[in-house]
Amino acid sequence: MTKARQIIIIGCGASGGTTAQFARKTDRTASITVFESGKYTQYSKCGLPYAIAGTISEFQNLIEFSEDWFKKEHIDIHLETSVEEINFEQRRVIAKKGSERIEKEFDALILATGAKPWMPPIQNIKKNGQLLQGVYVLRTINDGKQILAQIKKGKKATIIGAGLIGLEMADTLNKKGMNVTVIEALPTILANTLDEDMSEPLLLALQEKISVYTNHLAIRAEEQYGIITSLIIKEKTTGEEKKIQTDLLIIAAGTKPETTLAKTIGCIIGKTGGIQVNETSETSVKNVYAVGDCTEYRDYVTNEPLGIGLGSIGVRQGIAAGVNAAGGTYVLPPGVLLTRTSEFFGMEIAAVGPVKQNCLQLPVVSGKYKGSSRPDYFPGGEPIVIKVSAHEKTGCILSAQAVGSNAAQRINTLACAILGRISVEEFRKLETAYAPPIAPTLDTVTLACDVVSLKLARKRR
Amino acid sequence: MTKARQIIIIGCGASGGTTAQFARKTDRTASITVFESGKYTQYSKCGLPYAIAGTISEFQNLIEFSEDWFKKEHIDIHLETSVEEINFEQRRVIAKKGSERIEKEFDALILATGAKPWMPPIQNIKKNGQLLQGVYVLRTINDGKQILAQIKKGKKATIIGAGLIGLEMADTLNKKGMNVTVIEALPTILANTLDEDMSEPLLLALQEKISVYTNHLAIRAEEQYGIITSLIIKEKTTGEEKKIQTDLLIIAAGTKPETTLAKTIGCIIGKTGGIQVNETSETSVKNVYAVGDCTEYRDYVTNEPLGIGLGSIGVRQGIAAGVNAAGGTYVLPPGVLLTRTSEFFGMEIAAVGPVKQNCLQLPVVSGKYKGSSRPDYFPGGEPIVIKVSAHEKTGCILSAQAVGSNAAQRINTLACAILGRISVEEFRKLETAYAPPIAPTLDTVTLACDVVSLKLARKRR
Repeated sequence: MTKARQIIIIGCGASGGTTAQFARKTDRTASITVFESGKYTQYSKCGLPYAIAGTISEFQNLIEFSEDWFKKEHIDIHLETSVEEINFEQRRVIAKKGSERIEKEFDALILATGAKPWMPPIQNIKKNGQLLQGVYVLRTINDGKQILAQIKKGKKATIIGAGLIGLEMADTLNKKGMNVTVIEALPTILANTLDEDMSEPLLLALQEKISVYTNHLAIRAEEQYGIITSLIIKEKTTGEEKKIQTDLLIIAAGTKPETTLAKTIGCIIGKTGGIQVNETSETSVKNVYAVGDCTEYRDYVTNEPLGIGLGSIGVRQGIAAGVNAAGGTYVLPPGVLLTRTSEFFGMEIAAVGPVKQNCLQLPVVSGKYKGSSRPDYFPGGEPIVIKVSAHEKTGCILSAQAVGSNAAQRINTLACAILGRISVEEFRKLETAYAPPIAPTLDTVTLACDVVSLKLARKRR
Repeated sequence: MTKARQIIIIGCGASGGTTAQFARKTDRTASITVFESGKYTQYSKCGLPYAIAGTISEFQNLIEFSEDWFKKEHIDIHLETSVEEINFEQRRVIAKKGSERIEKEFDALILATGAKPWMPPIQNIKKNGQLLQGVYVLRTINDGKQILAQIKKGKKATIIGAGLIGLEMADTLNKKGMNVTVIEALPTILANTLDEDMSEPLLLALQEKISVYTNHLAIRAEEQYGIITSLIIKEKTTGEEKKIQTDLLIIAAGTKPETTLAKTIGCIIGKTGGIQVNETSETSVKNVYAVGDCTEYRDYVTNEPLGIGLGSIGVRQGIAAGVNAAGGTYVLPPGVLLTRTSEFFGMEIAAVGPVKQNCLQLPVVSGKYKGSSRPDYFPGGEPIVIKVSAHEKTGCILSAQAVGSNAAQRINTLACAILGRISVEEFRKLETAYAPPIAPTLDTVTLACDVVSLKLARKRR
């Protein structure tokens, strides 16, 4: 009898948890151990704004796979357990749970160490080494619970960062009756998701409900008795300063991959700061895999290194790492599409592929179409705007952005086109499903590609 | 100065009207003439059930491009004008409007003659050569108006044919308070759209609201004073007969291409009964094009001849014919995907590619996944079932069927995969857009392909 394969996973977020599940599916006899420094097994970080909003009735509901579930699958799960050291020579992990020391051998090791919130440099944001009271990041269930406890109708909330999470939280706090201000250092909102021409109408719509300061830095906090009272912000171009009264400050300014352990065993860290992984989710060190927010992979379109910050990609890396670490074979596409979506203030947005400024090396032609979810003659059609960018030489679709009706599902169709290296000329002829209550004869996805095709034809003439 | 190109289009339905538009877009100076035997310019036939239901407030609203619109575009439009003859030697069309005779020369001719409802052989359905009062087909605005006038709450309506139109009308009449019975000759409903395992749950749901008799033939009508009173139906296997009281009978049993004129000029008629066209929408006769329901093209997946019965395809053929007839170039994909959708009794269904029985020549492996529109932890998720079939050797996706949340948009994504000849193994790894209120981390579209991939892997082992 051969010895059972020993797999250790460090981190039980969505990526680490998924790795454990797929390792188990692939090898029913493997010894699988998961170390998680937090209190909870695999839960949805992306669901936190909705648990704070109350749409999801309890934070506990965010847990997708319980401790019991892991135990039933004979996965040795250790919560509130920190990995202190990886002894790579001896292929051993040394962890600590309270005063207890756990040592465990591995054949394959998976790093699912996640990311830490990036803290912008704000004067006086800490007192005695601690964040002021009323200042939070949103990364864990614990963060979510603390924020919820601070929400008071009629009080003032400020959010740093107008990315997806920042705006989801702005929506949540607005619904809860707070006066919301969002501060964004870049000149546009949602800069990683939408080009400026697509995000600008959203910004105008947002400004009817909340205050948004783009191109502003948060530079200094003011406090009383250790509790935040206001935030000083500065316009980046003019240098003009402004004081924003605030009872609650949420920092959603991006994350930084957690790679401390990876570095100790020589995993190559890429230029985005994440652990480099390949299409099997293996790092530069054999039999060591990494998944999720701690990793760096490639952009499918530009082939440039890309830090992973989407749960949906982490889960897919987890499938690959789990299967491969357990002796199976699972090869991911040669890069990520970055298919992403969100919904706030009643608007659905979605995108796939790099935003314009990340495509600057490529000759790109873009086109946009404003359509409706239904034929003109059918009442109740909802607007949908789609922008498509294609490679000027090949016509291949490189990216797409959508705002409006079923933006996410429409972007999935364009994501499939990018995956298949389909050109705008081919895609514009895609037969889309038509029925008056559901969609027009020619869907906006193809009409946007028509616009790009015509521009390309003119350029090539 | 060269003489302006002369284009004649026979028929101003969606396909013919679209042809005229795209001919005009392609050649601003061409002489474009359209002959239409009916009273109206291009309108949505697919919208008729919704105009009858009152969702669309007036039949007039179904007109997508008015007579004035055509005139403004300098398109010579002749309504209530029948083409009597095509003199192909002289490249001349002879038409008649009342007593007026119109003769017109063409360089390019487009046949957009549509289809006629197929009438099943029902004894006594006619009296003195006319359909009994209370018996209708649904093909024109006039048919729609007549049906609307006959709808009476609490009365009995019978529909022959459980295809998309039959069930859309069943929904409409049910909403209007009629007692609805549907008679279908085949053993299943929606046989051209869904495989039996997909349609069966729908049939059960329908039977809670209306009566459905599958595997039954309508064999005889009964009347009083020329008005229908009941319909005798017969179970095809047992031969058992049953009398259905009926005040209104709608026949929605399919259509037959109208090819009389095409035959007179030698256009090849294919085995489905439609005019054979190629990927430029040209018939076997040079400079004669045909578009829409009168045509036969090919199935993209099976490469078999296929009669065209979908407005969305007719419109795409119209684009091709219009551009090509006017001297441009527009090549359609080498076959149709048959992307289709509908909604009735609150259920959205969609499909792409041939149903199982039309794939019998191919080695096919199918898989099905029942998912939700949202992650489990997020309230309000709606069910979605997707079935995918793939080629056993290549893994290429051949067809897909969906019932439930956003079925149409999800099927569009799979339609793109079929267009791009993408395999289930590739598609299962497609990054789909994820956000808790919008879609789960792994969408049902990819999970259905996972099921097929696993089956394929087992077969190949």
